[in-house]
Formats: sequence, C-alpha cells, structure tokens
Amino acid sequence: MVPAMPPTDRIRDHAGQGAPTVAAQRTRRRLRADRARQLADLLRHQLLTGGFPAGVLPHESTLATDYRASRNTVRQALDLLRSEGLVDRLPGVGTVVVAQKYPHGLDQLMGLAETLREHGRVTNEVRTMGPAPAPAPVAERLHVPPGADVLYIERLRRLNGLPLSLDLTYIPLDIGTALLGADLENTDVFRLLEATTGQRLGHAEITLEAVNADAHSATVLEAPRGAAVLMLERLTHLEDGRPVDLEFIRFRGDRITMSGLLHRSL
Amino acid sequence: MVPAMPPTDRIRDHAGQGAPTVAAQRTRRRLRADRARQLADLLRHQLLTGGFPAGVLPHESTLATDYRASRNTVRQALDLLRSEGLVDRLPGVGTVVVAQKYPHGLDQLMGLAETLREHGRVTNEVRTMGPAPAPAPVAERLHVPPGADVLYIERLRRLNGLPLSLDLTYIPLDIGTALLGADLENTDVFRLLEATTGQRLGHAEITLEAVNADAHSATVLEAPRGAAVLMLERLTHLEDGRPVDLEFIRFRGDRITMSGLLHRSL
Repeated sequence: MVPAMPPTDRIRDHAGQGAPTVAAQRTRRRLRADRARQLADLLRHQLLTGGFPAGVLPHESTLATDYRASRNTVRQALDLLRSEGLVDRLPGVGTVVVAQKYPHGLDQLMGLAETLREHGRVTNEVRTMGPAPAPAPVAERLHVPPGADVLYIERLRRLNGLPLSLDLTYIPLDIGTALLGADLENTDVFRLLEATTGQRLGHAEITLEAVNADAHSATVLEAPRGAAVLMLERLTHLEDGRPVDLEFIRFRGDRITMSGLLHRSL
Repeated sequence: MVPAMPPTDRIRDHAGQGAPTVAAQRTRRRLRADRARQLADLLRHQLLTGGFPAGVLPHESTLATDYRASRNTVRQALDLLRSEGLVDRLPGVGTVVVAQKYPHGLDQLMGLAETLREHGRVTNEVRTMGPAPAPAPVAERLHVPPGADVLYIERLRRLNGLPLSLDLTYIPLDIGTALLGADLENTDVFRLLEATTGQRLGHAEITLEAVNADAHSATVLEAPRGAAVLMLERLTHLEDGRPVDLEFIRFRGDRITMSGLLHRSL
C-alpha cells in the first residue's frame, strides 16, 4: 500500500488577504495545484527511469489510491506531464510514456555519440562549416589572436533520427583544418580532435541554463516555439591545457537530462 | 578591431527544395536567424560574466562594426536577448543588462545561501511544512519503510527579495523533527541537517532538466506562463551514506546558471 500525499491541513497560508471565502477558494486552488505538481514530480522520476512496465502508467483510479490523492489531483498531474510532452493518453490503453529523455553525464567529459551509445545512433546534419575570423570573445577564450580565422561549425544533432540539439562550434584553425574533410556527419568533434592532435582532451568549463527557444531554433529543433531548451556552453581544453573547442549547445528540454554526483568536500 | 561573424557564403544549404527564388529567400532568412543566434550567444556570455561596463551594451552600430554584422542581425540578436529577459532598451541610454543570472556551482554540494553568499541574502517563504506519509518512490529513495512519515517542506526561495526557486523537500522524520522549530526562513536545509545530525553531508545524485513552467509554478515564481525553468532533482546523503534529503527544485531559468568543470578521465 502506497501512502498518501502530504496532508493539506498543515499548510501555512501566507496569501489570504481578500474576503475569507475568496481567500479560502484561492487556497484550495493553490493546494490542488501544489499537490498536482508534487505528484507530477514523483511520476516524472519514475517514467524517466523506466519505472512503468511497458511504458504504461497505472489507471487514474489506481494512482489516486496509491498516492491517496483525489482523482482531480491525479488528472491535473497527468496534464502537467502531458504538457511537458512526457506522456500521452491513448484511447483503450491509458496514459503512456511517449517522450524518452536521454541521460547526459555531468561527471565525465564525453561527446554526444559516446554518451548516448547505448540509446542509439547519433547523426549530425552539418548546416554550416568553414573558416571565419573569430569574434573577439571567441578569440580570447580560444587563445588565438583577435581576427585569426577559426573553424566555425553549426550542426543539428539527431538521436535515432529525432532532433536532439543544435550546436555552434568554434575551433582554432590550425587544429580545425584537419576536420574539414572528416566524417562530421557520423563522428563526434571530440573524437576527431583527439585523432587530429594525437592528444587526449583534458577538461572543460561548462555552464548550463534553461532558456525558451527562439522561433528559429524551435523550428530547427522541430519543437514548439518557446519550448524549454537546456543550453550548454562548453569550453574544452586538450590534456596540455590548450583551449580547442568552444561550443554553444541547445538541447531540446524534453529529450535530455543531465545527471551527476556532487560532493560536499572537494 | 573585432573580426567578422563567419561568412555566409560557405553555408551548405540542405533545404532548397521549392522554386529557386523561394528557396533562396528561405535560405537568406535562415542565415540571418542563424547569425543572430550566433551573435546573441556571444553577447549572452559577455553580459552574464559582467563583460559590459556599467551594464550598458555598446550602440547597435558599434556592435555591427565590431562583429561585422548587419544592423538587422544585431537588432535580431538583441531581440533574442530581450525576449529572454536579459536586456532591455532604455530611451536615451540604449540597451542595458536587466536580469542578472546567478552562478550555482556544479562542482561542490552547497546550499543556496552558501552558494549565493556573495550575491546577496537568500530568504525562504515556507509555504507548507509538516510530517506526512512518504509516497512509495520517496520512501524507497530515502530508505524509510513505505508509509513511514517523512517531513515535507515546500519553500519559495528568494535572493534579495526576488523569487529564485520553488523547492519541494522530503526528509526522514527522525532527522526532520529537529527542523520543525528551526529558522527555515533564513537557513539552508543543508546547514540544519549538518547541525542536527552532527555529521557533514557527503554526496548527492543530481539530475538537471529544462522544462516549461506550468501555470501555477509560474505564478508562484512570478514568471511568465511557460517560462523556461531549470529543474533540479537532488538526493543528498550524509557522510556515512544515508540518504537524508530528496528535493525537487524549480529554478527560474532567467535567474540562474549552473557552472562546473568536467574531466575527460575520471
């Protein structure tokens, strides 16, 4: 027997300022929304980790019993997951998991194809590629003279044919030149950099943000306008410390999760 | 002299399928959008790292010259940053940085107040707090018997008064009870857990996702409906390995970045 959602009668209401009945209504609405979000978070974890056999969620009434939640709360929680594109309702089947999110490690520096090897085939549509003078902030971070040419690459990356990310890449030209004839459609830039330089990659500074997709990025990624995008900025260095690869990566939020371990002491 | 954006004449166009003129128009539009996004990414980095003195961006014509981009491209790039809520146009002043994103480390396990100490004061509005039977997935992850009470806390967290995140927290009751009388408004749960248990925290498993805010979360976070949210799921363990704190945290995407270092070899 799965226990109940936390009870609502212990809620401290900091909102109730209007007439009592209005405040009470508002509080009830808020509580239902709070509980729906809470249930959605629990279900999200289960569906992302393959916790529902055959990708089918239990019936609403079962979920309501299991979580001692009202049918309304269950319905609202499923609506939240549906609006995130994670589940869908199929007539005669019920609520099914439709969008798999793929795990991308935050513990080790890996290319996309390496990371997702067990999930399928990564292919890259090269939308732009060629040498170009480095804008100042790029030149500075790649330690090349301002105005020096760098290799600029723009790729739409797919997993099993589905758009996953839009990557903008800058590479110093002395290293980048060797990539011009390479099989970028089927090979991670990381792998090519290591093959070209004969050196392992060392470390990368990364920054993650959540942004709403602009109209054009959304179109390229085949996502709705304004869809949440996980934006990764990554400056990768060779083992000897030289910065060699500056990337701006927009992952479709509904197709990727980033996971890792944090430690209290370093 | 800052060099140009990568030239457009090397672009491989995989789209041109309609009549030549339509395809050419489409390509031109796409190129302008590509270049605007590219410029926006470079400007975003600079404005997030305090690269513009006094928070004012150079005039459009200066940016156009500096990046050898057209005025149209510059305007479109600034529009992208404005739609993300990062800059605004002030009459007589120009384009100014309006939203600061705060850096949250991905390298070390820290509470929010610890992390953002240099940026200001974190306060917590406790919206819900009390013991409640643990839902099955919570019980399992916190290693408590199914149905056992856990402490459930829901907090809206603010930095200098501005909503930053909405946190849902589950803590085993034997440890959580001590938190019931604590100053949760002004203290990180991490700090309280260490004070209560007399033990340091050890590690945490984290998962990051980008999601669109549901209507209710958006209201609580005072963000537009559908705003991009950086969602952090974190299971924190004491130094002895016991899991003690399961959190579901929704950060406003326009107020937080996560930064860290990745290494190629572990």
